[in-house]
Amino acid sequence: MQLQLTSPLDMHLHLRENSMLQNVAPLSSKTFSGALIMPNTLPPITTKEMLLAYKKEILEATKEDNFTPYMTLFFSSSYDYNFLKSLKDDLLAIKLYPAGITTNSEGGVAEFNIEQLRPTLEAMSALDIPLCIHGESSGFVMDREAEFIPIYKELASAFPNLKIIMEHITTAAATKALLEHKNLYATITLHHLYTTLDDLAGGMLQPHLFCKPIAKRPEDREALLNLALNAHPKVMFGSDSAPHPKSAKEAPGCAAGVFTAPIALQALAELFEKYNKLDNLQTFVSDNAQKIYKITPPKKEVVLVKKEFRVPKSYGDVVPFLANQTLRWSIQ
Amino acid sequence: MQLQLTSPLDMHLHLRENSMLQNVAPLSSKTFSGALIMPNTLPPITTKEMLLAYKKEILEATKEDNFTPYMTLFFSSSYDYNFLKSLKDDLLAIKLYPAGITTNSEGGVAEFNIEQLRPTLEAMSALDIPLCIHGESSGFVMDREAEFIPIYKELASAFPNLKIIMEHITTAAATKALLEHKNLYATITLHHLYTTLDDLAGGMLQPHLFCKPIAKRPEDREALLNLALNAHPKVMFGSDSAPHPKSAKEAPGCAAGVFTAPIALQALAELFEKYNKLDNLQTFVSDNAQKIYKITPPKKEVVLVKKEFRVPKSYGDVVPFLANQTLRWSIQ
Repeated sequence: MQLQLTSPLDMHLHLRENSMLQNVAPLSSKTFSGALIMPNTLPPITTKEMLLAYKKEILEATKEDNFTPYMTLFFSSSYDYNFLKSLKDDLLAIKLYPAGITTNSEGGVAEFNIEQLRPTLEAMSALDIPLCIHGESSGFVMDREAEFIPIYKELASAFPNLKIIMEHITTAAATKALLEHKNLYATITLHHLYTTLDDLAGGMLQPHLFCKPIAKRPEDREALLNLALNAHPKVMFGSDSAPHPKSAKEAPGCAAGVFTAPIALQALAELFEKYNKLDNLQTFVSDNAQKIYKITPPKKEVVLVKKEFRVPKSYGDVVPFLANQTLRWSIQ
Repeated sequence: MQLQLTSPLDMHLHLRENSMLQNVAPLSSKTFSGALIMPNTLPPITTKEMLLAYKKEILEATKEDNFTPYMTLFFSSSYDYNFLKSLKDDLLAIKLYPAGITTNSEGGVAEFNIEQLRPTLEAMSALDIPLCIHGESSGFVMDREAEFIPIYKELASAFPNLKIIMEHITTAAATKALLEHKNLYATITLHHLYTTLDDLAGGMLQPHLFCKPIAKRPEDREALLNLALNAHPKVMFGSDSAPHPKSAKEAPGCAAGVFTAPIALQALAELFEKYNKLDNLQTFVSDNAQKIYKITPPKKEVVLVKKEFRVPKSYGDVVPFLANQTLRWSIQ
């Protein structure tokens, strides 16, 4: 038994820089045709020069494969129409972080004042540049995504021609809001389809499952599965694969992030097969993103075969999701 | 400024065995007059011989201090009246764990069948031996305590002469149930008065704050504070101080437990002072327990002074709660 996927896309990917990028970028380019590259480097990507240099670094690291890094800028309300127009050919989206909400997001938006954001968001609307948002408040960790929903709704209403991507949604509340606005879309990760807070902290504490947004309740996971397994046209796969060295994960002050890129397609196949939804995987991991972002990624045929795959204990010094577990699907 | 506490009691304490016990027991006996010693050793304490041997080990390790280890048995429905009567002078309470719910609890109760538990619980009622319960279901981690409440209520109603101690309560729901039954009492830990899930996983992940039951929501913490700070007669201090070696905490599969014993009184003084409730601390850390358990602990005067105390980074190989932080109160 085999499964052919055409041009799989990962619409939310952290590649970091330097030696970490050298380690992880080829692990994405091997099986994905393209990926939306997050801009929360140190410092974050905020200029054309930085963006082009970062793109070049990624292309160099992935040159063995036919792989398109779709670039993003780190949102700032100082971006104006002319600046964004000059960048239009080099970026696919802009990523907005609330200040301090996750890794390297200190320079994010501290306050959601629509009038202050308006010039940049109107320029993005006019240029058809989607806005990707890490939508969390600074409240209690289990409530952060739900508390951010009014901001999603306010932005969606105020800028009806702006495509807004609710990144890595984790709650039933977010899946509901998503359906209420024509211009809201969402990415869903692998690990939020697999886990709840129970997997992180219900037994022993598992730092390699610690991420932001934190995995939520069983009924939240069910709501995500319902959209992903049915390849709802408003959702697409975005791994949020976020590598940290083992030393930063297995220590007090453990960094947030789950590294899924090299095992994502295999684990998705296992999940979709379990629910008898394998026919929808192509749409979830590629077709929906192509329509939402209006992109045509490099043609790449990835064949998965029904053969056991033992997930490595680590890739370099990065421990992957499901490390040392056996999946039923392998990349051919 | 100073604060004198007479015979402080820790009514929920894990001392482990062997070298760990040698390390941690003197840290409790230094500042506490007595403590209720949990029986979840490996194997758990289930016979008179084991109980007496364990008591002897503790008395040896704490011989420098005037300290009473109040002993407990690990609950089994096989205990009958005559067995318990023969032990009456040597134990203060019996601790019931649902099977597999926390460290070394595999031999706990798998099913709460009142009729199966009745002979033992009636014997305990007749002998006035309190039943201490780790009250969690096997459900979603944030719901476990709330889901267990019907069992607390059923037991409290079925055995009205049995004193039932709801151990280390963490939720507003538990504080409410506590007040609804005359024969329900509760212990409250230091760390559940200080932390919520946000402290564990809202920023970086902090394995040294990982415990069972997991710390809950801000409104749950408020409900606990309301009882503890007012020294409500149904609650008493029980640290649930649960040491694990650093190597077991700072690794995947991190063990559950927060080690608070050596800094508990200082941190409680800081907390009660912050809320202008210092006058209630004596009642919370000793008087209530004396009344609930009908005990007269060894007379010990512990004087706390308003002088900065830098919490050590570790005690032996155990990292304490608030490690390396500065408290405003010291033991004189």
